[in-house]
Amino acid sequence: MSKPQPIEYAQASAPVRAVFDDIKKTRNVPDVNNFWKYLAHDPAGLKRTWESVKEVMTPGALDALTKEMIYLAVSVTNGCGYCIASHSAAARKAGMTEAMFGEVMAVVGMANETNRLANGYRVPIDPAFE
Amino acid sequence: MSKPQPIEYAQASAPVRAVFDDIKKTRNVPDVNNFWKYLAHDPAGLKRTWESVKEVMTPGALDALTKEMIYLAVSVTNGCGYCIASHSAAARKAGMTEAMFGEVMAVVGMANETNRLANGYRVPIDPAFE
Amino acid sequence: MSKPQPIEYAQASAPVRAVFDDIKKTRNVPDVNNFWKYLAHDPAGLKRTWESVKEVMTPGALDALTKEMIYLAVSVTNGCGYCIASHSAAARKAGMTEAMFGEVMAVVGMANETNRLANGYRVPIDPAFE
Amino acid sequence: MSKPQPIEYAQASAPVRAVFDDIKKTRNVPDVNNFWKYLAHDPAGLKRTWESVKEVMTPGALDALTKEMIYLAVSVTNGCGYCIASHSAAARKAGMTEAMFGEVMAVVGMANETNRLANGYRVPIDPAFE
Amino acid sequence: MSKPQPIEYAQASAPVRAVFDDIKKTRNVPDVNNFWKYLAHDPAGLKRTWESVKEVMTPGALDALTKEMIYLAVSVTNGCGYCIASHSAAARKAGMTEAMFGEVMAVVGMANETNRLANGYRVPIDPAFE
Amino acid sequence: MSKPQPIEYAQASAPVRAVFDDIKKTRNVPDVNNFWKYLAHDPAGLKRTWESVKEVMTPGALDALTKEMIYLAVSVTNGCGYCIASHSAAARKAGMTEAMFGEVMAVVGMANETNRLANGYRVPIDPAFE
Repeated sequence: MSKPQPIEYAQASAPVRAVFDDIKKTRNVPDVNNFWKYLAHDPAGLKRTWESVKEVMTPGALDALTKEMIYLAVSVTNGCGYCIASHSAAARKAGMTEAMFGEVMAVVGMANETNRLANGYRVPIDPAFE
Repeated sequence: MSKPQPIEYAQASAPVRAVFDDIKKTRNVPDVNNFWKYLAHDPAGLKRTWESVKEVMTPGALDALTKEMIYLAVSVTNGCGYCIASHSAAARKAGMTEAMFGEVMAVVGMANETNRLANGYRVPIDPAFE
Repeated sequence: MSKPQPIEYAQASAPVRAVFDDIKKTRNVPDVNNFWKYLAHDPAGLKRTWESVKEVMTPGALDALTKEMIYLAVSVTNGCGYCIASHSAAARKAGMTEAMFGEVMAVVGMANETNRLANGYRVPIDPAFE
Repeated sequence: MSKPQPIEYAQASAPVRAVFDDIKKTRNVPDVNNFWKYLAHDPAGLKRTWESVKEVMTPGALDALTKEMIYLAVSVTNGCGYCIASHSAAARKAGMTEAMFGEVMAVVGMANETNRLANGYRVPIDPAFE
Repeated sequence: MSKPQPIEYAQASAPVRAVFDDIKKTRNVPDVNNFWKYLAHDPAGLKRTWESVKEVMTPGALDALTKEMIYLAVSVTNGCGYCIASHSAAARKAGMTEAMFGEVMAVVGMANETNRLANGYRVPIDPAFE
Repeated sequence: MSKPQPIEYAQASAPVRAVFDDIKKTRNVPDVNNFWKYLAHDPAGLKRTWESVKEVMTPGALDALTKEMIYLAVSVTNGCGYCIASHSAAARKAGMTEAMFGEVMAVVGMANETNRLANGYRVPIDPAFE
């Protein structure tokens, strides 16, 4: 059996529990998502990834909603099923309405289309963009 | 010689000129970008793509800046050099500051990382996201 | 019904059976994986793909484990669910430990992140790398 | 200096020359493309890749032009600059007109767009397609 | 609950019904595929996408079968499960035989392989392709 | 002008210099690569990325060479020109021979091919891999 299994809080080592506790406190949720329960197989990676995500997703020059929509746009482009599901939920929690979701999808679709047209027609970069 | 060449306004057919004129008027620019000059080899595709882009990028539930940053995030994920250059410029014109650009890149980088961690650990979607 | 179906040994043509036999003998397994049973719809493609995989995956300058981890890293980057599952298993069979798996995932995640940062910041190649 | 350099016929080993000769004869060209001159650093890989390409690109149920346009469509989707250039040329040589090129690009663009819309809306497969 | 749900004809607004009616009439089918039922959450996007798809997929310099096989090749490259299923079906309906399907897959596989070899060996574009 | 410019040590702020100093010391090099000079526009991102890369690339269950070859394999799959150049160099510095490079490329090519064959034939995961 090669498929990874989740590590629940009850089975987790102290370093993993410390990260789980910080996720739960920071996000004010009763349990962590599956993503973290699987990543817990690599305690150092779990800690590094969570601390990076926490730092990157904290509102700064961009607000939380904008960041979540960008995260979703990347996940849709890459076709990551888990990430599309989890970041759709996160973006909605941060305030993404149905209309906003539709517009994110429309921009993502259009960008994926024109990225290929630019590739295929071998368009050189305009001097103004250099 | 197989490399496509740009079609400038002076050489363009009437249908192509009509699109170029609409781009120049809509964006209030003296000339169209290379992207459109190459796409002009397919006048129907030029018209369809421009009208789609115009419709999709018009501010609606999301403002112009947010849309441009999402466009940029997709282009960076796909590694489209032309599109990164042109949509970096468009996003800056729409108000993206240096700090915002840094945060867009940070989110794009993080999403591309965690997309692969979710793939690799074969994380199942949480029931709450279904 | 458009979904391909597997071709089992009992139904297989002689050329397909010859490839299945070689896979079973080379890998010392009682049956071939689903991948080969589906590819059997194209007997020439089955033979060509198997012979290429066999040649490429034979230990040479790199050992079998290193090759399997690279195969897994590519499959995770591309988000190919079947390939992630089958090459996780193959890498474990070749000696990949839990700790090694965690490090492969960490490198894959980091590379996917920095690939996009390099794209987005439009970093020119250092003269030393040319 | 880490950048690979081409291996020209005059410097090539006998096994590499044998492949170069077969490419030149099969394609009726005076010299091989850069792709083969770089791949020549791995003589076994050069031979395997050339023989696979030759087998796959030989007209069968699909003619040469259709195959080249599919090759181009994949290369454009992946954003491989070298491959877009070389397979645009190969497709034109096989009969791709300007109008056909425009239609290939239009289909590639549209497919890349709708692929992401299907991802983002998490569309389940219709029973009729199973 | 964040997962999008399909919008069936009976619940659909007038603008959505108008698009559904046109799809059913154009394709001579009793109901639209799931893709359109999900996209219906964005009526303007539904209309724009359908009209673009209809225009792009109409036979022109390329026939319907060739266009569907290119669509399939892109979808396979991107790993879009829904699109692979729906465009396999569409290509078969347009006349793709089992042998043709096998050859499309072989070309797609080979192109994905050589795209990476060209990347990795950093092959410069031949002057003849410029 | 929208193209980012490098930040050299002489112009750098104290936090950026601290990271540059740590990179130079850790890698025992006289100057940092362009990647870090561009990322310096986001001092927090520079620090986070460097510390993550340093942690991930430190030899552990996998040695430095194996990690660099995996990094290269991902970069080649994604088509990131800068990363292919810099991680080819890093892998060679860590001991990658010409023969090893050829085998990395061969595995990367093969994986990219079979990933698509598995997608296209819609191969279900074998029970043994679950």
